[in-house]
Amino acid sequence: MAPLLRALTRRSDLVLRQFATTSTRMMTIPETQMAQVYDRYHGPLYYQEIPVPKPGPLDILVNVKYTGVCHTDLHVWEGDFADQVKVEFPMVGGHEGVGIVVAKGSQVDQKFEIGDIAGIKWVNASCEQCEMCHRGYDQNCHEAQNSGLHVNGTFQQYAIVHAYEAPKLPQGIDMAKAAPILCAGITMYRALKDTNVGRGEWVAITGAGGGLGSIAIQYALAMGMKVVATDIGAERGTLCKKLGASHYVDAKGKHDHEVIDEMIELTSGGPHGVVHVAPVPTPFLHAARYVRTRGTIVMVSLPKDTPLGADTVDVVVRALTIRGSYVGNREDADEAIDFFARGAVETPIQIRGLSELNGVFKDMDAGRLIGRVVLDNDK
Amino acid sequence: MAPLLRALTRRSDLVLRQFATTSTRMMTIPETQMAQVYDRYHGPLYYQEIPVPKPGPLDILVNVKYTGVCHTDLHVWEGDFADQVKVEFPMVGGHEGVGIVVAKGSQVDQKFEIGDIAGIKWVNASCEQCEMCHRGYDQNCHEAQNSGLHVNGTFQQYAIVHAYEAPKLPQGIDMAKAAPILCAGITMYRALKDTNVGRGEWVAITGAGGGLGSIAIQYALAMGMKVVATDIGAERGTLCKKLGASHYVDAKGKHDHEVIDEMIELTSGGPHGVVHVAPVPTPFLHAARYVRTRGTIVMVSLPKDTPLGADTVDVVVRALTIRGSYVGNREDADEAIDFFARGAVETPIQIRGLSELNGVFKDMDAGRLIGRVVLDNDK
Amino acid sequence: MAPLLRALTRRSDLVLRQFATTSTRMMTIPETQMAQVYDRYHGPLYYQEIPVPKPGPLDILVNVKYTGVCHTDLHVWEGDFADQVKVEFPMVGGHEGVGIVVAKGSQVDQKFEIGDIAGIKWVNASCEQCEMCHRGYDQNCHEAQNSGLHVNGTFQQYAIVHAYEAPKLPQGIDMAKAAPILCAGITMYRALKDTNVGRGEWVAITGAGGGLGSIAIQYALAMGMKVVATDIGAERGTLCKKLGASHYVDAKGKHDHEVIDEMIELTSGGPHGVVHVAPVPTPFLHAARYVRTRGTIVMVSLPKDTPLGADTVDVVVRALTIRGSYVGNREDADEAIDFFARGAVETPIQIRGLSELNGVFKDMDAGRLIGRVVLDNDK
Amino acid sequence: MAPLLRALTRRSDLVLRQFATTSTRMMTIPETQMAQVYDRYHGPLYYQEIPVPKPGPLDILVNVKYTGVCHTDLHVWEGDFADQVKVEFPMVGGHEGVGIVVAKGSQVDQKFEIGDIAGIKWVNASCEQCEMCHRGYDQNCHEAQNSGLHVNGTFQQYAIVHAYEAPKLPQGIDMAKAAPILCAGITMYRALKDTNVGRGEWVAITGAGGGLGSIAIQYALAMGMKVVATDIGAERGTLCKKLGASHYVDAKGKHDHEVIDEMIELTSGGPHGVVHVAPVPTPFLHAARYVRTRGTIVMVSLPKDTPLGADTVDVVVRALTIRGSYVGNREDADEAIDFFARGAVETPIQIRGLSELNGVFKDMDAGRLIGRVVLDNDK
Repeated sequence: MAPLLRALTRRSDLVLRQFATTSTRMMTIPETQMAQVYDRYHGPLYYQEIPVPKPGPLDILVNVKYTGVCHTDLHVWEGDFADQVKVEFPMVGGHEGVGIVVAKGSQVDQKFEIGDIAGIKWVNASCEQCEMCHRGYDQNCHEAQNSGLHVNGTFQQYAIVHAYEAPKLPQGIDMAKAAPILCAGITMYRALKDTNVGRGEWVAITGAGGGLGSIAIQYALAMGMKVVATDIGAERGTLCKKLGASHYVDAKGKHDHEVIDEMIELTSGGPHGVVHVAPVPTPFLHAARYVRTRGTIVMVSLPKDTPLGADTVDVVVRALTIRGSYVGNREDADEAIDFFARGAVETPIQIRGLSELNGVFKDMDAGRLIGRVVLDNDK
Repeated sequence: MAPLLRALTRRSDLVLRQFATTSTRMMTIPETQMAQVYDRYHGPLYYQEIPVPKPGPLDILVNVKYTGVCHTDLHVWEGDFADQVKVEFPMVGGHEGVGIVVAKGSQVDQKFEIGDIAGIKWVNASCEQCEMCHRGYDQNCHEAQNSGLHVNGTFQQYAIVHAYEAPKLPQGIDMAKAAPILCAGITMYRALKDTNVGRGEWVAITGAGGGLGSIAIQYALAMGMKVVATDIGAERGTLCKKLGASHYVDAKGKHDHEVIDEMIELTSGGPHGVVHVAPVPTPFLHAARYVRTRGTIVMVSLPKDTPLGADTVDVVVRALTIRGSYVGNREDADEAIDFFARGAVETPIQIRGLSELNGVFKDMDAGRLIGRVVLDNDK
Repeated sequence: MAPLLRALTRRSDLVLRQFATTSTRMMTIPETQMAQVYDRYHGPLYYQEIPVPKPGPLDILVNVKYTGVCHTDLHVWEGDFADQVKVEFPMVGGHEGVGIVVAKGSQVDQKFEIGDIAGIKWVNASCEQCEMCHRGYDQNCHEAQNSGLHVNGTFQQYAIVHAYEAPKLPQGIDMAKAAPILCAGITMYRALKDTNVGRGEWVAITGAGGGLGSIAIQYALAMGMKVVATDIGAERGTLCKKLGASHYVDAKGKHDHEVIDEMIELTSGGPHGVVHVAPVPTPFLHAARYVRTRGTIVMVSLPKDTPLGADTVDVVVRALTIRGSYVGNREDADEAIDFFARGAVETPIQIRGLSELNGVFKDMDAGRLIGRVVLDNDK
Repeated sequence: MAPLLRALTRRSDLVLRQFATTSTRMMTIPETQMAQVYDRYHGPLYYQEIPVPKPGPLDILVNVKYTGVCHTDLHVWEGDFADQVKVEFPMVGGHEGVGIVVAKGSQVDQKFEIGDIAGIKWVNASCEQCEMCHRGYDQNCHEAQNSGLHVNGTFQQYAIVHAYEAPKLPQGIDMAKAAPILCAGITMYRALKDTNVGRGEWVAITGAGGGLGSIAIQYALAMGMKVVATDIGAERGTLCKKLGASHYVDAKGKHDHEVIDEMIELTSGGPHGVVHVAPVPTPFLHAARYVRTRGTIVMVSLPKDTPLGADTVDVVVRALTIRGSYVGNREDADEAIDFFARGAVETPIQIRGLSELNGVFKDMDAGRLIGRVVLDNDK
């Protein structure tokens, strides 16, 4: 019995094809797997054998091939969110994974077949029943389960994810390079949307020379925005210009008012929006000054316990908007992946083995990493 | 392990209370029930005993107390949609029900407890996995299952509905009067939203004196719009004014240009939006003329095989928007119910027994009904 | 030669009537008038005779009948904005006036005729040529001239205003009661719009028992929102409830978490938006905690040199929006006046004479005023 | 006395520079000029000497260097709009001009200096006082004066335009190639905006191989959309693909359902929006079928007296939006020009002399033109 809408659109052939059960290939799933497990905050990471989990009725089981390592993984492991959410140990971290669907629950009918490529992101499951879910904001679901925080994440070879939350990636995609899109990419893409910057308008990106910033520059250009990048040092400027930024404002050694004036001059009145990626307050305070009247500043991250700090007279008289942006919803995920798959965005990665996670965390903590580290989960 | 967002908002107490398992009362559920069944288009309606269905893992089972009778029920039964969607007989119609939750599936955790009041609407289940669902438009899900079309509807004492799709109604609500909100109310509420009419702006409602129209007037006022009603005949005008319309344009015996001029004059330039409820083309053609420049006309229904008909030069030069509106999503349902529960909307109903459905269909077909018929499913 | 759009809409009669030159009545305009003039910050206010100004080609000359006295008038007089904008003395303050059009410039064709009722607001003229003006945000025009700051304001009997910026009020309106709408009303109306609170959703208003707050409550209700008011003390609560607020949260003597929890509980998860009227930071910090996830806090005023102060983790993870709102544009003005003219909003005023401005400022500074003071410019 | 906002943003230097009076160069303006004049519908075009007009207080006088020839010019000359708007003869047509500002009215202060490059578009003046103007929709002003319809247009060497309506072009721009942006470019740019197609989403363009369509493809790409083009014939497909369309649907010799199915297949469910450029109804009817559920079809042009024709059941159940788009507002003009100036859009033009207009009209009427004709007004 065909649903009404499908029938009306005369798309039955297409839709049937799309949802056809591809001669369900059977995948051999081992009983155990290798994973990076820890049992207390800041405790040792044990690279050890653990059981492969079984998917619930709405889950898929993904053979994770590659996983990015994100600063949030480090924060969770270090217990930085322990005041808000307690990790139930033992825990497997990681929330930026790409792999192959090897099993699926009884209620997962249409979206995934065995052999499909699936992504695992920060939101591992949402309740589908709350107001946020009804409005399409699963990332803000009050009952959301996060990968590597509430449920075992992607630092293992086989991970569970709710079928509703897992994006599907096209066959043939470079799974290693795609991994950082699952968190860094989605987050930057959504933050750019949240600026409300129109096509042909200016967006400023703070911390533009870093990992997140360099992804943001590329998405902004693909979205039809004009980009002015800002960061510290000439070297980062070279990178930003190479990625397509129209201008680079080097804040190194400059007075506040110089940065502000330069930004306003280059954009004929200030950028229409700002994505504040740099995890320090000063560029935000600059942004509140140089953003165009009626413009929007989107905050993606800031150190804990940092108040916003912008002057309220500025905010009121210039009718500014300051907005927090938190990963993205499922549409954002699909769109961010599509831009990547079409070649609009390049992720600068270095690949290491899952077994080396301990060293990666140390390098990350010491600020020694260049580009995004992606782990090969089979090594 | 508390989800992150919930923890951050320090709402744990509230949320825990909200989702607490109220000492799960057991309801006695019979094996069989009375239902109105038919087995071919336009075939006889058998008021007979059938088994009470069992909910699947994501379903709730509702003891339907009252159900509205909607024109769509008549159309489905008459086979008007048969070209698009075949009914799998035997079928139980109805899609405007209110009742008590008596059982729930294994995966239904948080939203419903036994004893809660639930609604059943046109969308009985959606896939949660398609683009429309991800965007919060479950009513446009290509795999949506409709009550009384794909699955047995509300013309029975016990009906199944997907927990994600069933709105929850507050205890103590008048279930009989609430029933028409589940379809007529939601549809009018959403159509008014789709006009993009701002607070304090004018909305015109065609067919305003009918069942849908009189509900639309009340919602529009509660939404802060100014209402100009139009229909045929003075009697309907009296009703419209009583419900709060600022003006009534009686199209009876008037030339096209008279209706148009009157509408423009009364609203100082034309209403900003129009909800076209009347199931005939003429008021739509008028609306395309009198709606304010850059205004929006929302179509809720029109006879089959009727082309839109508006003149394209008008549409282009005046930058008009014509938009179809189709029931509402889950947020619309919750909001429409909340307005009703707060007393903003009154539904004019007459109550009859479920056993009398056959006569109700006859009266509806003959245009003999005044107000909405609501069936008492125990009679 | 009829413009194309007008012709297409077949509205020629109506439009011609609307713009018809009402047999241009001649008004006798005196050479001099009484005004309240000062010549240095915080200097004495001289109630003296000065020349009646002559309108430029795009101006109208308004015989001001009544003018509200706003806190901003006090601030300007005290020199609080002197770091940003220097007043060119001598100056006549006031920016909330209503009166009769007695003369108009050569380029003012259609909108105003002699004898019309016009309003004077904070924005006295805008450039019509900058990006902000093109987008319909004349209040943010970088070349905007403000009444009582850049050009002589409404504390005189005859004032100049740009025809494009002056709203037209309906004949028969209560000019004294309408005066506060020209600033307080517009500002509250726009701030409520800027919350993006939907119909049937919750808006919280801080400082709800004060002059601005009590106007905000009435607009919010007329706009279809549900209102939860908050302020300090039971007496203000009585007023708020009388004006239609569903709930009142009395912050008096309560711990922060008590205010936050109460607000969340009353609105089943927090209000969707907040208009922060209270000119102190604490209610804003509360709002950042209790506003619903993905909600918006609109700031209308705050003391100088006050940073925003909200915690960034809250703002990011809960995806909050904080937005400044600054008076309103011309559409907001027309709409706010229309709501008032239809009786949706009552302004609590006390009338005094223009000659008494000095005493009014003293009472205002000492916090001795209840309700809005409106001056009769002929006394 | 610095306006408040400007002061707050600390932009005084920048703003002052922007508005500085560039040592007002004097231009020698002749008493007479050459123009193409006609004195009745479809009457002969006289290439003759006429007086150079004098600008009013809000006007600029532009020495038009190049002007495009648009189909609308032909329609006006042929009297196709005579039922709606009578041309007051004698008239000079043309509404797509670029030239040098040689004089300006007394009230034109800031935006234009002598020697600036200005554009002349369809809207030559708007009232600035009506609701449409207040909302930023000057193109829909009911009192708008159109170039070549209400006031003499760009088929002359010196033309008048309202300073508020004339976009400013950057020095060094290719004035001949920029001319078609002033109408064709703005119209396509705005129409694409009106589709509400998000970045990374699909837009279909009908008549994509023609002059308007090929400009639309380029803007859509620069705006971050994915483009599927459709037209008739393989040759146009080659052009569309070369301009960057991802796919081309050749409607030549295909059944309706083949076009529809192909479009849906190529875009995995239908394009999210359609710009209907082709001046015939069939592609619109296709679009109503293949556009994605909840998608938008924007109409730019259609033959006179053509009703919309889409089936209402489709429109309602699939919640489609059909919207007319009519040139663009001043922001659209500035943005469309900026995209062109940055090299995102190429206009395929052939240059002829103003004296040859008669022949150009004949070629246009006979469908013999390839690309846009731009006239050199000095030849």
